[in-house]
Amino acid sequence: MDRKKLISLIKLKKSFLCIGLDSDIEKIPKHLLVYEDPILEFNKSIIDATKDLCVAYKLNIAFYECNGVKGWQTLKNTLDYIPKDIFTIADAKRGDIGNTSNMYAKAFFENMNFDSITVSPYMGSDSVKPFLSFNDKWVILLALTSNKGSIDFQHLSSDNKPIYQHVIEQSSSWGEINNIMYVIGATNAEYLKKIRKIIPDHFLLVPGVGAQGGSLENVINFGMTKDCGLLVNSSRGIIYAGLNKDFATLARDEAIKIKLKMELALNKFI
Amino acid sequence: MDRKKLISLIKLKKSFLCIGLDSDIEKIPKHLLVYEDPILEFNKSIIDATKDLCVAYKLNIAFYECNGVKGWQTLKNTLDYIPKDIFTIADAKRGDIGNTSNMYAKAFFENMNFDSITVSPYMGSDSVKPFLSFNDKWVILLALTSNKGSIDFQHLSSDNKPIYQHVIEQSSSWGEINNIMYVIGATNAEYLKKIRKIIPDHFLLVPGVGAQGGSLENVINFGMTKDCGLLVNSSRGIIYAGLNKDFATLARDEAIKIKLKMELALNKFI
Repeated sequence: MDRKKLISLIKLKKSFLCIGLDSDIEKIPKHLLVYEDPILEFNKSIIDATKDLCVAYKLNIAFYECNGVKGWQTLKNTLDYIPKDIFTIADAKRGDIGNTSNMYAKAFFENMNFDSITVSPYMGSDSVKPFLSFNDKWVILLALTSNKGSIDFQHLSSDNKPIYQHVIEQSSSWGEINNIMYVIGATNAEYLKKIRKIIPDHFLLVPGVGAQGGSLENVINFGMTKDCGLLVNSSRGIIYAGLNKDFATLARDEAIKIKLKMELALNKFI
Repeated sequence: MDRKKLISLIKLKKSFLCIGLDSDIEKIPKHLLVYEDPILEFNKSIIDATKDLCVAYKLNIAFYECNGVKGWQTLKNTLDYIPKDIFTIADAKRGDIGNTSNMYAKAFFENMNFDSITVSPYMGSDSVKPFLSFNDKWVILLALTSNKGSIDFQHLSSDNKPIYQHVIEQSSSWGEINNIMYVIGATNAEYLKKIRKIIPDHFLLVPGVGAQGGSLENVINFGMTKDCGLLVNSSRGIIYAGLNKDFATLARDEAIKIKLKMELALNKFI
């Protein structure tokens, strides 16, 4: 999906909600365990109940890989079930030397047809560029993450700039606003202000709203652009809103709450 | 596999060779394409021909993931085929927030029974620690990689120390010499000298010998400890030594050449 289509989708749906399918067999409602593939049934119900409210689904690959071969089948079947006009993110945090990154790109962009993949920047330009050579596919590069450990290396200062800023500055020249987004943790929106000065037009994928404690208001105030420029993710807060037979309805209710805030912001700013 | 067993294995086999199974359908001998799973046949032949010469096999996960569900089956079948007394590395470069890293750990340490996994440090302590809570399993943390892009962020200086040094210093306290190793690219062995001052006892996984141009002699001179402390990987240089029916014999010949240099070094230093 290209940038133009993504922006239209956001405007049409009045939403920049991304729903994270971090679907865990230990956490899904127990009545689903009778199905041959309980995770797939869970995902299908969540997708059916929320697809009109969100513009993206993010599949956290670890939650599928932990079930091995069967998990990869669930991943593929879930991806195939997502309507084609919704943006899809392989939250995979991959990145390796060039020929290996190219294989990861094939895995997620060819073998499966994801629109985008999250990539770790640690190995530098040649570990990221292979992902950028696919048409209408996106790299979502880790810059400033929302977890506690982000302090360990991302905030180290070099030439009076934190490492995450070096990552953003250097990498923004590897691709363009049509094929690179950044993961920016929502837990401190002050950083968003600073980051928007460096990359005024790039889309940001903002996790950490909901279970991880980030504020949607801050993200909107400091991160939104004239094209929206945001995909805000919520995973656990939506998909585990209910634990019984009405789980999908409760997930929908939770998604509506966030979507309405987004709609207000979009009406106000765009 | 614990550290004591790994060291015994190295001493017994007079080798610290790791063979990388970066097995690519485009590169394996054409006569294997008649098999139902050509990559598996290739891997089995390589393993049969080299298992007495190496102490570890490193499976580059990208090369399996690019074939989707089928690739994960090949990965599992290959792992199951490797003799239990050989150290196994999932070269996966994973790393994510705590609950997600825990799922990746389950994928590679429980669903599959790898001895170790390569992990990217960018997201910090809580992205690495979940991998360290499994008995006799190892994290092999990216520190200084051998690719060109390693210059982009790993060498940035903060407090007069490169980022990769910060990674090594901080992370060495997250685990111990029994469960953390480091990826140190072999292309500049001078760095090894410096790194050995910081972590005199940790095992290092050294890629980049062979196709990537690193020197085995430098690695031995500057990296070897009284317990050896090294796993030196060669992938393409060994597994693609031959492209015809005698590919396994030619792979063996190549592995012997490297193994003999290792044997000499072990006899001299240990």
